[in-house]
Amino acid sequence: MFSIANKKKVRMQQKLKIIKIGGKLIENEQNLSVFLDDFVKLKGAKILVHGGGNMATEVAGKLGFETKMLDGRRITDKNSMEVITMVYGGLINKNIVAKLQHLECNAIGLCGADGNSIISKKRPVKEVDFGYVGDIVKINSAFISSLLEQKIVPVFSAISYGGEGQLFNTNADSVASEIARALSHDFETELYYCFEKKGVLANADDDESVIENLDRRKYKDLIEKKVITDGMLPKLQNCFEALENGVERIFLGNSELLQKKSKHTKIIA
Amino acid sequence: MFSIANKKKVRMQQKLKIIKIGGKLIENEQNLSVFLDDFVKLKGAKILVHGGGNMATEVAGKLGFETKMLDGRRITDKNSMEVITMVYGGLINKNIVAKLQHLECNAIGLCGADGNSIISKKRPVKEVDFGYVGDIVKINSAFISSLLEQKIVPVFSAISYGGEGQLFNTNADSVASEIARALSHDFETELYYCFEKKGVLANADDDESVIENLDRRKYKDLIEKKVITDGMLPKLQNCFEALENGVERIFLGNSELLQKKSKHTKIIA
Repeated sequence: MFSIANKKKVRMQQKLKIIKIGGKLIENEQNLSVFLDDFVKLKGAKILVHGGGNMATEVAGKLGFETKMLDGRRITDKNSMEVITMVYGGLINKNIVAKLQHLECNAIGLCGADGNSIISKKRPVKEVDFGYVGDIVKINSAFISSLLEQKIVPVFSAISYGGEGQLFNTNADSVASEIARALSHDFETELYYCFEKKGVLANADDDESVIENLDRRKYKDLIEKKVITDGMLPKLQNCFEALENGVERIFLGNSELLQKKSKHTKIIA
Repeated sequence: MFSIANKKKVRMQQKLKIIKIGGKLIENEQNLSVFLDDFVKLKGAKILVHGGGNMATEVAGKLGFETKMLDGRRITDKNSMEVITMVYGGLINKNIVAKLQHLECNAIGLCGADGNSIISKKRPVKEVDFGYVGDIVKINSAFISSLLEQKIVPVFSAISYGGEGQLFNTNADSVASEIARALSHDFETELYYCFEKKGVLANADDDESVIENLDRRKYKDLIEKKVITDGMLPKLQNCFEALENGVERIFLGNSELLQKKSKHTKIIA
């Protein structure tokens, strides 16, 4: 039973916001700048997670490497992994940190190998070998908490550590939700997915048809009606699993989501 | 006057080793592996500093960017700075951290913007505008010490934070010596420069002609005799300044230096 004492304990926990920023917000200098202005205004402990798929594809192309995709997922060979390490782990990550420092936000840029923070294992080979792609098996929440206690803002690129000295490309949505789940033991966690849309749409062709509250029943209903398809399916599956594993609240929306200035989707249990 | 009590205090300080690894050791997978094996065996607090000049030049070339050098120094335009951020801050840095984690050394990869750790200002334009090149003005030793206290090993790429959201390319030797100087308030610091030679050579054509002990008098003498020239001059100037500013001991040698298995140069005050 959920006692009053327990409720009080939960209410007294420090809040933590985990924000995942999507590719299209990163790639445009102006969009990124507006987003980071909103990000630094968020009060309390916070973590930023980013990928950077299109930029990696662009750099790979310039270097003469072909990018292979399957159902929107990157098949990551050795060359691709090097490009991802350069672009996500270096270029995007360090530039975001520099911009945050300029906004007086004391950030630190990390990948999963740093402080042994995000541990993964190679995705099992079934019909397809995704190559250097890892699924998360452990988050080092003690290390991440120690940074938050020092009022440092971790900025994670979507790269995990697969053991044996190997870095793995990892889905940025999963990085955000796994961090939120792991940290929910010590914090009251909120998860924010910022992308190019205002939220989950009832009609893909109408950007204003935002579903403002989405629970599991409605979610199943929308899957049956084929309103929710493709990339949104695993993202939302991820959300409901996070809610069942300690994350308090989840929001999806565009760059204005952080200040709740526009319509957005709230996922509820 | 230097009292016995003070001497005791110094003797009781925790030791810290700052190791700078040169480009040629990084670029060869086998050399790097041997070096890191020796590095993890070093007892106590330690910091690794790396650049990666040739690899950046190679990637820049593949991307179609021309690399401009002047007296061995890179003129860093916007494109060059992006490549350096990718190669030093991403590819080299994160791969070293992954390899160290594999050797059970809990490392964290940083550039100067991370935790506001290395602050620089743009090198003044005199005859030449070096572009995005920064000279160090401040080391955030409190942040670096807090990592060392947690038994975390910082791995710094030679990128500093110039304020205004800007990253700067910074000489890796200077990054190592400035960190050593700043941390010498809290630690008994030793500085190691690992490069392709066994040390400072009396005869540039004889790799065995290592000057094993070098003090300032001998150094001046060797400059006059033109034994020390070119790249070695600023490196050694840097060393003597570090010794005068709190660093206890400085060593120069090849990858075997860390385990003192071969001849090397010791710089003394």
